[in-house]
Amino acid sequence: MPSRVGKYTMSLNNKPIILGYAGVVGKKESEGPLGEYYDQSHKDTSLGESSWEKAESRLQTEAVSLALNKAGIEKTDVDCIFAGDLLNQCISSTFGLRSLNIPFLGQYGACSTMAQTLAIASIFTEAGAAKRAVAVTSSHFCSAERQFRFPLEYGGQRTPTAQWTATGSGAAIIGSPTDNQSSKNSQIHVEALTFGRITDFGVKDANNMGAAMAPAAAQTLEDYLNDTGTTPMDYDMILTGDLGYIGSQLMEELLMKDNIDISAVHNDCGIMIYDRNKQDVHAGGSGCGCSGAILCSYIMQQMEAGKLHNVLFLGTGALMSPTSSQQGETIPSVAHLVYLKA
Amino acid sequence: MPSRVGKYTMSLNNKPIILGYAGVVGKKESEGPLGEYYDQSHKDTSLGESSWEKAESRLQTEAVSLALNKAGIEKTDVDCIFAGDLLNQCISSTFGLRSLNIPFLGQYGACSTMAQTLAIASIFTEAGAAKRAVAVTSSHFCSAERQFRFPLEYGGQRTPTAQWTATGSGAAIIGSPTDNQSSKNSQIHVEALTFGRITDFGVKDANNMGAAMAPAAAQTLEDYLNDTGTTPMDYDMILTGDLGYIGSQLMEELLMKDNIDISAVHNDCGIMIYDRNKQDVHAGGSGCGCSGAILCSYIMQQMEAGKLHNVLFLGTGALMSPTSSQQGETIPSVAHLVYLKA
Repeated sequence: MPSRVGKYTMSLNNKPIILGYAGVVGKKESEGPLGEYYDQSHKDTSLGESSWEKAESRLQTEAVSLALNKAGIEKTDVDCIFAGDLLNQCISSTFGLRSLNIPFLGQYGACSTMAQTLAIASIFTEAGAAKRAVAVTSSHFCSAERQFRFPLEYGGQRTPTAQWTATGSGAAIIGSPTDNQSSKNSQIHVEALTFGRITDFGVKDANNMGAAMAPAAAQTLEDYLNDTGTTPMDYDMILTGDLGYIGSQLMEELLMKDNIDISAVHNDCGIMIYDRNKQDVHAGGSGCGCSGAILCSYIMQQMEAGKLHNVLFLGTGALMSPTSSQQGETIPSVAHLVYLKA
Repeated sequence: MPSRVGKYTMSLNNKPIILGYAGVVGKKESEGPLGEYYDQSHKDTSLGESSWEKAESRLQTEAVSLALNKAGIEKTDVDCIFAGDLLNQCISSTFGLRSLNIPFLGQYGACSTMAQTLAIASIFTEAGAAKRAVAVTSSHFCSAERQFRFPLEYGGQRTPTAQWTATGSGAAIIGSPTDNQSSKNSQIHVEALTFGRITDFGVKDANNMGAAMAPAAAQTLEDYLNDTGTTPMDYDMILTGDLGYIGSQLMEELLMKDNIDISAVHNDCGIMIYDRNKQDVHAGGSGCGCSGAILCSYIMQQMEAGKLHNVLFLGTGALMSPTSSQQGETIPSVAHLVYLKA
């Protein structure tokens, strides 16, 4: 059973384990600094599909399939799947996963979705509501551009604060440690969780998501540190996804006002995914698939290799829509935290 | 701890209880057969807001506020809120609930969202991951029309199979029965759950959601009956939401092929919400707010009054988007079941 620690944090006493994980990306991401770590890289951004949306669905299908294979688990042995993405009505998830025949629970947390799905799947396995659950998310540059900004053909110019939506998907299989079949080989478990409250600092610029999301990330991290009585130096890495360059700096500044210095251990998936000098994406990467693909490849690989032991993963999401922005609304944001331990 | 029954069903042994509930609707719904049962009815469909989306957000704000009041619980005493709606990026939920300062977990299950949020909130309270959790959803005729179909000003004609998206919201507060503060007065608890698998029978007509969703409802109900070894006659009511007239008939026909006759106990929120003769809405009502408002007012009131004892609530959702339909895709659907007992 999970036990509540402080006001916002849950400690998972059964310690659900990560049985398998996979990251799948597109061409630009495969050319970034972490290119060698992804399980699959596509040179064709359309993945051979007839639309960007279908290509994004395919990313999820592949990520789940690879993660199941690596876990040595059949899809019939999975009790439920938690999935979400950025597209209207989460169609990447519903169309990408409809053929799996696994009980499906759609999630919407914008770019925090990898943390949200991983956290809820962990609670389900911890509580025995599922023996094995899947957490998966995706994003695609081309489907996101035309839905949130402009069709690619328009050739719109991006502002310096804009982040580049990554083409990618990450999937993790979470298992109950009390289940014999699922306890093989895994060295990563979910130790604790903090679900975030919505923050809104009044940022209205839909091309500066990092600024909108930074307060949510800072708040959830502070909630977690307060609840657990730990400090940033107790962790090998505090990994946000995806604040980019501007949001990461703002988050560090916000925390410094409360005398919390994370600079020595903080990194951000939006910073890690592209090479700032060779791949100009302005303020960094973003999209659920950015943190999803990095967490479910490079980070988990480093943990299994013994190079990272304690990772606080903070998924951050901007909860607006083009309609809300057109109506003059500010951008509410949220961040969820998952403490992974190897 | 929940215990799994059969392949797809979970029995909740701690029996999470419904501490409070509220249904809020618009003018047309208040003029329907259940008008007297709603906690609040708005004569002005805009709720005094400057956009339909803001009006829909307000429905959620009010439903949660009323449900908390009826439960005698402060918002600071709620551990997390599960919310979702039909709008792109679930903005009714995020904007309607951002000021609550409660950890927020966005859900996307289309019109199955009331069942999905209620089910996940029940597992969280059952497992001790939350002492008290909120489940809420909404829909609004005007915001849904312009997003999914045509702007109202266009005056598009509706087909005979079309359902009318209800303007409404339903909210329920779920509590752990082991918590002293929350055990007062409640007579309704969540006994069991079945999460649905995505079905897709190839229906492409976005104006015939009932037909698309009927197979999902039939499948989840069959899963539940198989898992539990019960029959339809073991329940006072099997309540779907929202298949409307066409989908309800199709669901009954599908089940009859497997010799399951639900006709004596089946009702559907999309049928109950409007008067077929006086309020012509063609194939009935729909939208997350339809089943949300009816479940969280009339149905729960009947249960507390001792007129209903065993209710299987089946939320049904069509998981397509305008984009997927424009790309020629079929309509995948899902249904989740919550067994409520008084």
